Amino acid sequence: MRLTSSFAKTRKNIPADEISVNAKLLIKAGYIHKEMAGVYDFLPLGLKVVENIKQIVREEMNNINGSELIMSSLQRKDLWEKTDRWDDKKVDVWFKSKLNNGTPVGFGWSHEEPITDMMRNYISSYRDLPLFVYQFQTKLRNELRAKSGILRSREFVMKDMYSYTKTEKLHQQFYEQCIKAYHKVFQRVGIGDQTYLTFASGGSFTQFSHEFQTICDAGEDTVYIDEVKKIAVNEEVLNDAVLKQLGLSRGNLLKKKTAEVGNIFSFGSTKAVQLDLNFIDEEGKPHPVILGSYGIGITRLMGVIVEKYHDEKGIIWPDSVAPARVYICSVGVDKKVTSEAVNLYKNLCDRGIEVILDDRDLRPGEKFSDCDLMGIPYRVVISDSTIKNTKYELKSRIKPEVKLVSRQDLIKVLDN
Amino acid sequence: MRLTSSFAKTRKNIPADEISVNAKLLIKAGYIHKEMAGVYDFLPLGLKVVENIKQIVREEMNNINGSELIMSSLQRKDLWEKTDRWDDKKVDVWFKSKLNNGTPVGFGWSHEEPITDMMRNYISSYRDLPLFVYQFQTKLRNELRAKSGILRSREFVMKDMYSYTKTEKLHQQFYEQCIKAYHKVFQRVGIGDQTYLTFASGGSFTQFSHEFQTICDAGEDTVYIDEVKKIAVNEEVLNDAVLKQLGLSRGNLLKKKTAEVGNIFSFGSTKAVQLDLNFIDEEGKPHPVILGSYGIGITRLMGVIVEKYHDEKGIIWPDSVAPARVYICSVGVDKKVTSEAVNLYKNLCDRGIEVILDDRDLRPGEKFSDCDLMGIPYRVVISDSTIKNTKYELKSRIKPEVKLVSRQDLIKVLDN
Repeated sequence: MRLTSSFAKTRKNIPADEISVNAKLLIKAGYIHKEMAGVYDFLPLGLKVVENIKQIVREEMNNINGSELIMSSLQRKDLWEKTDRWDDKKVDVWFKSKLNNGTPVGFGWSHEEPITDMMRNYISSYRDLPLFVYQFQTKLRNELRAKSGILRSREFVMKDMYSYTKTEKLHQQFYEQCIKAYHKVFQRVGIGDQTYLTFASGGSFTQFSHEFQTICDAGEDTVYIDEVKKIAVNEEVLNDAVLKQLGLSRGNLLKKKTAEVGNIFSFGSTKAVQLDLNFIDEEGKPHPVILGSYGIGITRLMGVIVEKYHDEKGIIWPDSVAPARVYICSVGVDKKVTSEAVNLYKNLCDRGIEVILDDRDLRPGEKFSDCDLMGIPYRVVISDSTIKNTKYELKSRIKPEVKLVSRQDLIKVLDN
Repeated sequence: MRLTSSFAKTRKNIPADEISVNAKLLIKAGYIHKEMAGVYDFLPLGLKVVENIKQIVREEMNNINGSELIMSSLQRKDLWEKTDRWDDKKVDVWFKSKLNNGTPVGFGWSHEEPITDMMRNYISSYRDLPLFVYQFQTKLRNELRAKSGILRSREFVMKDMYSYTKTEKLHQQFYEQCIKAYHKVFQRVGIGDQTYLTFASGGSFTQFSHEFQTICDAGEDTVYIDEVKKIAVNEEVLNDAVLKQLGLSRGNLLKKKTAEVGNIFSFGSTKAVQLDLNFIDEEGKPHPVILGSYGIGITRLMGVIVEKYHDEKGIIWPDSVAPARVYICSVGVDKKVTSEAVNLYKNLCDRGIEVILDDRDLRPGEKFSDCDLMGIPYRVVISDSTIKNTKYELKSRIKPEVKLVSRQDLIKVLDN
């Protein structure tokens, strides 16, 4: 994208009520805009990061046979009454409204109920199973407090996956597959080494659910990590019996503030019983379907990455999620410089490399500081002197040194 | 996608209250599921069509320098009060709710107000203009009646674009560019020849707005078409003065039922004045920004295509939006047949061709009828006898004849 003809603009001022590091940086760098407390718009650069994260998650969900669909946000009261989750006393994050004819509707804060009800139209025989479906859904949750930027918003993008299997054993197989896929996702977006499979409270069916917790000072959770075994226990379930059960010892555990970036959950047959989702087995006998639920907060993940990877100059995106791979600064308005900048820009775009061309009439220092603030992995400077040397000035966002490189060498670096 | 391991399922039964042709066909063919009246989920095949249409629109919007972003669904009351559109008596399609602290919020049925308010943070000088931004947004509209399937839903995907320019003249230039881009979109999705630029009522600022109306019996509009001049007039503005003004004569006009697939609208400076969006010009003087708004109903467009392109067997997707280019039917469970089917499937996938492999253990007739119902442009049959001849049986959805072709010839047809 060329900064003169696209809507990607850094800002000096940020809303006075914004206190979270991730939202402050993302607003300043032109990734998001605050609509109201806990509600953000995603500007072109922000949308690109969201889409990059979604694509990584999509690939890993497709790898374990997930089928992508999209459910509605509007939901029916009667479904949630069947599972006793319509009442605001039971679920305190509902947004509700009414159709013009008076019928109450809810706005999806979760989709377990509607998607399981829907499956009654598509699952009747063992032949229809297993089924793994997922979506990237904009969830609406009426959070009482929303002070953590995009770590906890009233409107946010979530990947939620649901598994429908015949038996508990087949469910467990998929559950394990999903744990592996989640580890791959967090590795690919750059936080794998600091993200731990975490034992957390389970609910009515299982003793534990599993969370993926990333070490993060801005996180809302506290977990105890065994760094050798690479697992953690959420403090909400930590006690001597649990430690013994998991083969952990208190002395080996590190207490850490963390942010939950994913969670997976077994429902057994409870939801299917409540919602009447059954299948006929090979012998003609009916059984309720076994359900699992697997979430990743996409926009929260983006926020966690910003919380972890930034410095005093701005954001430092991991390559895999950065909205562009390189930021070209043309220095000065000399025709030779600007035409060389456009030429390189087009050449890199043609190679499928995402490029930001800063073709604005600004001083070099302003361009450099915007590039750092936006957190683009590589910066290329084109000036009179680089043209004289038929080289480019190349700098990585995370290294202090500046190198002079030929176009060929530049492309080698960027193609990596 | 392989039908045995993905969630793409045709259905025999459809909801009793469903009366629209588009929704009936799309439900039967496994593209959508009805959540409640006017609210539909998009299953994997349906989501693919939506994404195909979005991608065509995206390319054309990017071609006219649009920057993609995504606004929130949750909206502030105070913004809409400034333009006098919060009151249910003024706008009767609002869904509204309240934050837990009692603050009223609305769910986005349109985004002109929030996006224009947002721009106050990014537009202050003539240097910031022009700006063209667009989004694919899930709009929520509390429609009193919702009987037309995805032609008019309570929750639907819309592309809305907004132009911010310095002068009325520059606005008009972009407006004309956008008309051309819209014609390209409708051409590319297969309804160009039956879609007319239509003069419609304008509102407070302009005499006319422009709609793009597609001839469609299920549509809700009536327009009068001049087939030579390739324009139409919505009956809501048709009178002798208008005809004279547009140089049309009543005798040359054809009355047609149509569906509105796009509309474009000039606001002049009214919105900017109401919402206080100004820029400082080259001489240091402040002016309100000129606003235009440009919509295409993405899911409605999908519905219109189905209304126009189907027969007694099912949907007939234009190539450009079909969820897959080819449907491979393996006939029988002979190992040679199934392995040849998988081999061809992988080969085509590797070439970037979207393929549905019907590897279910069903009779050929059932597979053929699902293929026709789903509306996939090409069907390939692999059986004992085709293997003996080292050929494939190829049939186009819109032609009766079946051809025997080599793999090379098949790829030639599919690559087109």
